[in-house]
Amino acid sequence: MTLPAGLVGAPVEDLDTPALLLDLDLMEQNIATMAAAFRQLSAKLRPHAKTHKSPIIAHKQLAAGAIGITCAKLGEAEVMVEGGIRDVLIANQIVGAHKIRRLVSLARHADLLVAVDDARNVEELSQAAAAAHVSLRVLVEVDVGQHRCGVQPGEPALALAQHIERAPGLTFAGLMGYEGHLVFVPSLEERVRRVHADMQALIDTVAFIEAHGLPVQIVSAGGTGTALITGRLPRISEIQAGSYVFMDGRYQTIEGVEGACALTLLTTVVSRPRPDRIVIDAGLKTITCEFGLPRVKGRDDLELVSLSEEHGTVRLRDATVSLRPGDKLELIPSHGDTTLNLHEYYYGVRGGRLETVWPIAARGKSR
Amino acid sequence: MTLPAGLVGAPVEDLDTPALLLDLDLMEQNIATMAAAFRQLSAKLRPHAKTHKSPIIAHKQLAAGAIGITCAKLGEAEVMVEGGIRDVLIANQIVGAHKIRRLVSLARHADLLVAVDDARNVEELSQAAAAAHVSLRVLVEVDVGQHRCGVQPGEPALALAQHIERAPGLTFAGLMGYEGHLVFVPSLEERVRRVHADMQALIDTVAFIEAHGLPVQIVSAGGTGTALITGRLPRISEIQAGSYVFMDGRYQTIEGVEGACALTLLTTVVSRPRPDRIVIDAGLKTITCEFGLPRVKGRDDLELVSLSEEHGTVRLRDATVSLRPGDKLELIPSHGDTTLNLHEYYYGVRGGRLETVWPIAARGKSR
Repeated sequence: MTLPAGLVGAPVEDLDTPALLLDLDLMEQNIATMAAAFRQLSAKLRPHAKTHKSPIIAHKQLAAGAIGITCAKLGEAEVMVEGGIRDVLIANQIVGAHKIRRLVSLARHADLLVAVDDARNVEELSQAAAAAHVSLRVLVEVDVGQHRCGVQPGEPALALAQHIERAPGLTFAGLMGYEGHLVFVPSLEERVRRVHADMQALIDTVAFIEAHGLPVQIVSAGGTGTALITGRLPRISEIQAGSYVFMDGRYQTIEGVEGACALTLLTTVVSRPRPDRIVIDAGLKTITCEFGLPRVKGRDDLELVSLSEEHGTVRLRDATVSLRPGDKLELIPSHGDTTLNLHEYYYGVRGGRLETVWPIAARGKSR
Repeated sequence: MTLPAGLVGAPVEDLDTPALLLDLDLMEQNIATMAAAFRQLSAKLRPHAKTHKSPIIAHKQLAAGAIGITCAKLGEAEVMVEGGIRDVLIANQIVGAHKIRRLVSLARHADLLVAVDDARNVEELSQAAAAAHVSLRVLVEVDVGQHRCGVQPGEPALALAQHIERAPGLTFAGLMGYEGHLVFVPSLEERVRRVHADMQALIDTVAFIEAHGLPVQIVSAGGTGTALITGRLPRISEIQAGSYVFMDGRYQTIEGVEGACALTLLTTVVSRPRPDRIVIDAGLKTITCEFGLPRVKGRDDLELVSLSEEHGTVRLRDATVSLRPGDKLELIPSHGDTTLNLHEYYYGVRGGRLETVWPIAARGKSR
């Protein structure tokens, strides 16, 4: 984005609000910390781009050692490939004629991996890939206890792997098993114990499939809360953690996860109708609350008590505190992924000044 | 938006998903029903455009008799004015030098009304308007019990009105008092009783200000749940209801509100990992849940039990029902306003076929 003249170098307080601020120092530190941790592990990091939806940030993760990028949606993958990224896992089922056509077209310009959990979907992918003379690498998604998508471990996973291996245009590349039900277990000890217990079925399935003569090259799993646990397990080859790059507010509530919140929402006080209440210009259309209400950064004396569409109501614990319309505050989102999906741009800040503005290029790319 | 060739007239089931569908018959019926109701009232309808963010829909409301449009944000008002709409109430405080400059600039091209609840904000608006030689019409926001923005009824409202009247560049046009705390009271009888009780302070304030020699031309209030109650009260001149145009899922749970849900989200089944569970391609990045989880339209046998970012997990009450990857379902959002803010386009449908695609032009315009 071309910045309006004079905006680069402007103090953060001069920005119009609501504005999604990205603390560049903290983001770079989060990327470096996770990259350093992965240099000690056998598993590699393939960061999830749903968390930032930005090719420039993905390239920074690759430069720090990541082996590729993970996407939730084909539309996100298209944006990443357009941004010059070659190795992309779409950690999801691609279903329907429209999307399969786009997938096969994208496969001409990128090294794609895609998840499946259904035999008919395998047939459809195979027909489209074969007709276009492209080869698609496919992972079988295994349900490791999240109870969302995925076939059961063992026999069902083997049967689908064999189906893929026989299908023209497709290559069986391995397994995917996302332990999303465990990433927010607050106690580190319990999280470790449950990851070890639940992921055993996935690891056993690797051995089971290989015992039937099919090599399992890739085993992808892990989120930010489990990356350094799952990443130490045998046969897990890739971790698809994403949130670590900004570190959601919610991760501050669980044990054993390093990193500081790099993402905040700059807001303006628009009203102080009572000494103990202010209203800010941020509501549900600029920050989400499904993981809980956001907190006001560095202000334990202020409590955000409700969000309506375009208003946030904040209670002052000390009614004598000076805060009036025009003053600015920063909110820490409880869920960065859904919050940034509401915005067009990151305002990249360093040392309290605007350094850059980056488009959230894959915002809204849910197809 | 120029439609891809061949898409107009396509059956809904052929659309790629997730896609926000707008049932044009139902929307037109909702607009006509509310317009007919207002022809019996002394208050006029000034629909809230935060609910659709679309100039073409706003023009349809004006054509049906609305006297102007309400917006939550200056950015929405800019989009409406660019779309040819002249009479716009910004039902919010406009705070800060950036926005006040934009407001004064917009006032050259539109008949604006803006809310205030702070004396210093009045000064800033006055200086900017006077310097630009424009005249801004201003409403004093009064807190009628919602406890968000607004001065207290009586003396504080009078003092601010007098301040506005003395301020160069500004005209005191009246009062605004939004009973947002009452629009979802389920019992009609209780809603009527509480609206009458709480709005009395606003009506008394009108008389109080006029007794001090200041005419109160406009009194704006009301939401979809209270429009036909508040719209019958003496001295209420305008109702800023918005949701009636699509009618959120949540309005189906309260008594005495007519209209059918015109907005649905078309989704695709992407997985059926178990006989009693399907997963659809709609999650928190395409539909919101702060008013409760969406329902599956016309399918009492299906219950959406959770939304993650890009997945919805649906329980089948009857595990023998035929549903497989590729099949499509429609979700009824519990909160249309925040759901449509996630999308770029309405897919306008009539008789099961795509008639038009309209940009959600003010999507994300929260500044």
